[in-house]
Amino acid sequence: MKSIDVNSDLGEGFGPYRIAPDADLMPLITSANIACGAHAGDPLIMDETVSLAQTNKVRVGAHIGYPDRENFGRRMMTMTLKELELMTVTQLGALAAIAAHRGAQLTHANFHGALGNLSFADADVARTLIKAMKSFDPSLKFIGLGDTEASRIAEEEGIEVVYSFLADRGYSAPGRLAPRGTAGALLHEPEDIRLRVAETLSSGKLKLTTGEVIPVKIDSILVHSDTPNALKLAHAIRQGIADAAFEIASYAI
Amino acid sequence: MKSIDVNSDLGEGFGPYRIAPDADLMPLITSANIACGAHAGDPLIMDETVSLAQTNKVRVGAHIGYPDRENFGRRMMTMTLKELELMTVTQLGALAAIAAHRGAQLTHANFHGALGNLSFADADVARTLIKAMKSFDPSLKFIGLGDTEASRIAEEEGIEVVYSFLADRGYSAPGRLAPRGTAGALLHEPEDIRLRVAETLSSGKLKLTTGEVIPVKIDSILVHSDTPNALKLAHAIRQGIADAAFEIASYAI
Amino acid sequence: MKSIDVNSDLGEGFGPYRIAPDADLMPLITSANIACGAHAGDPLIMDETVSLAQTNKVRVGAHIGYPDRENFGRRMMTMTLKELELMTVTQLGALAAIAAHRGAQLTHANFHGALGNLSFADADVARTLIKAMKSFDPSLKFIGLGDTEASRIAEEEGIEVVYSFLADRGYSAPGRLAPRGTAGALLHEPEDIRLRVAETLSSGKLKLTTGEVIPVKIDSILVHSDTPNALKLAHAIRQGIADAAFEIASYAI
Amino acid sequence: MKSIDVNSDLGEGFGPYRIAPDADLMPLITSANIACGAHAGDPLIMDETVSLAQTNKVRVGAHIGYPDRENFGRRMMTMTLKELELMTVTQLGALAAIAAHRGAQLTHANFHGALGNLSFADADVARTLIKAMKSFDPSLKFIGLGDTEASRIAEEEGIEVVYSFLADRGYSAPGRLAPRGTAGALLHEPEDIRLRVAETLSSGKLKLTTGEVIPVKIDSILVHSDTPNALKLAHAIRQGIADAAFEIASYAI
Repeated sequence: MKSIDVNSDLGEGFGPYRIAPDADLMPLITSANIACGAHAGDPLIMDETVSLAQTNKVRVGAHIGYPDRENFGRRMMTMTLKELELMTVTQLGALAAIAAHRGAQLTHANFHGALGNLSFADADVARTLIKAMKSFDPSLKFIGLGDTEASRIAEEEGIEVVYSFLADRGYSAPGRLAPRGTAGALLHEPEDIRLRVAETLSSGKLKLTTGEVIPVKIDSILVHSDTPNALKLAHAIRQGIADAAFEIASYAI
Repeated sequence: MKSIDVNSDLGEGFGPYRIAPDADLMPLITSANIACGAHAGDPLIMDETVSLAQTNKVRVGAHIGYPDRENFGRRMMTMTLKELELMTVTQLGALAAIAAHRGAQLTHANFHGALGNLSFADADVARTLIKAMKSFDPSLKFIGLGDTEASRIAEEEGIEVVYSFLADRGYSAPGRLAPRGTAGALLHEPEDIRLRVAETLSSGKLKLTTGEVIPVKIDSILVHSDTPNALKLAHAIRQGIADAAFEIASYAI
Repeated sequence: MKSIDVNSDLGEGFGPYRIAPDADLMPLITSANIACGAHAGDPLIMDETVSLAQTNKVRVGAHIGYPDRENFGRRMMTMTLKELELMTVTQLGALAAIAAHRGAQLTHANFHGALGNLSFADADVARTLIKAMKSFDPSLKFIGLGDTEASRIAEEEGIEVVYSFLADRGYSAPGRLAPRGTAGALLHEPEDIRLRVAETLSSGKLKLTTGEVIPVKIDSILVHSDTPNALKLAHAIRQGIADAAFEIASYAI
Repeated sequence: MKSIDVNSDLGEGFGPYRIAPDADLMPLITSANIACGAHAGDPLIMDETVSLAQTNKVRVGAHIGYPDRENFGRRMMTMTLKELELMTVTQLGALAAIAAHRGAQLTHANFHGALGNLSFADADVARTLIKAMKSFDPSLKFIGLGDTEASRIAEEEGIEVVYSFLADRGYSAPGRLAPRGTAGALLHEPEDIRLRVAETLSSGKLKLTTGEVIPVKIDSILVHSDTPNALKLAHAIRQGIADAAFEIASYAI
């Protein structure tokens, strides 16, 4: 039986604030991308989220973002490659230390929001981020999207890529999400998402918004956590996986 | 020949701001307490300071402080023991990651400003901080002051204490700095400081502001970096050490 | 017919984060205490909240707090009287500017969280805060609690006090909230709160947790916004006011 | 006798940090652009700087920048026009409140760093910023550079422009500073700067780095405060003004 990972961005709060129902989502996923105190997260929340992951036998990864709490890392910021390199290192260091403190282990990383988007298209940025990850720990996996600079460079650098699929987003081309506002860019109905997951996993092929069908490699499916119906989305994804006769299991380490 | 370490708090800038002439001080010391991005420091400055320490063969340590840039960690803040524990872990993790990224190694830690003062007197706080350090890396040494809760608990926990002496401050009692504003609390003249270092090291005895003379264990001498005459102070301390016929050398690891 | 104001703390978000259902609460109240960018709030949220107040003909006031987003202004911080004075002035200035930009007017202020608590008991702090308010605009009213230093000093300084009543909290003595965790400290049931409002307004007397009954002056009732059942609480308070045959209306300016 | 203003960016510190020798510069200028707590500044420093301006009879203006302490407002950040509008309003409000608290008055504003550069070239941004200033106080003057969108739109909106000249920078075209690194982009020698000021004021003509000479309107000369030789620069500018037989005086209000 084929198996697939389910990942989600958690620990995205700050002080009294929370974004997602982390405690309810954690049992539904197998790997967590945890904010490291830059775009979101603080020591208490990082710890709380790592502990929740441990309890649920969920893989712990670092979700690295711009140091921009006010915009949740969604705003483009001009940063030098050196700044990007070093902030990747400090964010990894902070979360890995919390994980080790709780007897857990960081096994993957990926990039959040505007930084993530930049890493899809900008090879210099992607190389800087991936090399910083590799310097920190070459055994870390990268949860990435197919057909992006970040994933291509990770492969080049010998970093294992866990290919993630955004089941509630349309793709306009390989590795390219359809812009919000265009037809098919966002799937809202759990039933549509369930079907899309089932069909895509079963066939190993992704239907683009252009109608074209392309082969796709999927190792993990992302549950968007910062939507009001995150729990329904998670259940729909899990049902779609079951429908395709796949097993839900963490990526292997 | 007996040897002694010389330590100083460096990397205390933020963005465009700097506190001390770090590049000039680094060649004069043997261990650096580096700000970890909480009371001061950011990834670029942490990196710059670690690199400077490497070049000068200076030991790298974490200077852990309250998350309070505006007051430079000098303001008391009410934090729970759990918050103190976890922020110690994330600060250590961030700096250790930068050090490892440069091929350097974190070998000690200590506590800055208002947090440091609290750790001298409050056993619960001291135990929390020391245990967090130990959880992160039990081989880290603690640069501490004699006759304080922090040093006492470090010994209890099997953490090696490097006993530091503040050569430009008067002591009113064992482990107790004379309050600023009282007679003898601050030594300003480099010549006075040189003499004090030489006499204290030679005799192994510390003269209190009360006139009393007590035995004192000194493994390192602190160069206060955030004073206008930090460089003169460093030279006076080094001269005092030479006068006492001690060798200046990093603590052993 | 006697009238009474209903106040609530709104605009307590930051970036993507929100605390209370502000848009739903605003139509149920008559004066809003709006965070000014220190313990919470940012320019977009301040603007959004002021606009919402205008639409609902709700009085706009400044809710001044410690510059401590991570702890939402709930943590005690050591600040000098001068720092408290000046941060009161800048917070008032920022919110008043947003209000004026939208054609609204700031007509009251009060103090949030740990700063508010300190102002109840510490006369120096209370005097500093009240005098800073008065310097900014002597026509601002102060929404305060009876029998506290802050209200006493406001009266002394000629600042009109709008006496606020916390309908879901027990009082252990005049001007003294019963500590959380003691019997009667928190009223959870909307029905209990409705009754308490109705009885207290009708009689003009407050029943303490000791059983003692004391006269009380009430000009406004606070709807705690940061509880999961804030809307139910607001409706219960409004029903209690109706039961006492009072009219709900903003404080007069 | 013709008169000219001399302006400088002051109050650019944060907590324990300072950029320029403000107390020494203040007596040498006639209008101060004061940081408002976003790219730099905090309530204590704003207050200190306003007070220093008052003592020296220097005009007080708001220096508005990106909310980016770590990069001192020098980094481009993607902000919506609404965010720019509202942050302009809150920054003006905060500084104006401090000024009023000290019996001083805000009489001008301008834009710092990356935001200032953007306002030179982007008409939408410039219009947003200028209209926010005008909404706050239509009598505020704008200290701007000639031949920029910001100054053009200020004129259009009926905001009086005080045209500022950067005496230590080369201009490659009207309203266009020569890029750093190109020949003549930076004048370092006080003597060169003195001569440039004297010649430009006397002739009313500016020599570009291309050799071309164009007419120029100058109401004020900027003393760059964040250079190591700021005081020498100020004296050179003042001497150049005297050599041209101009009087140094604040812009009229």
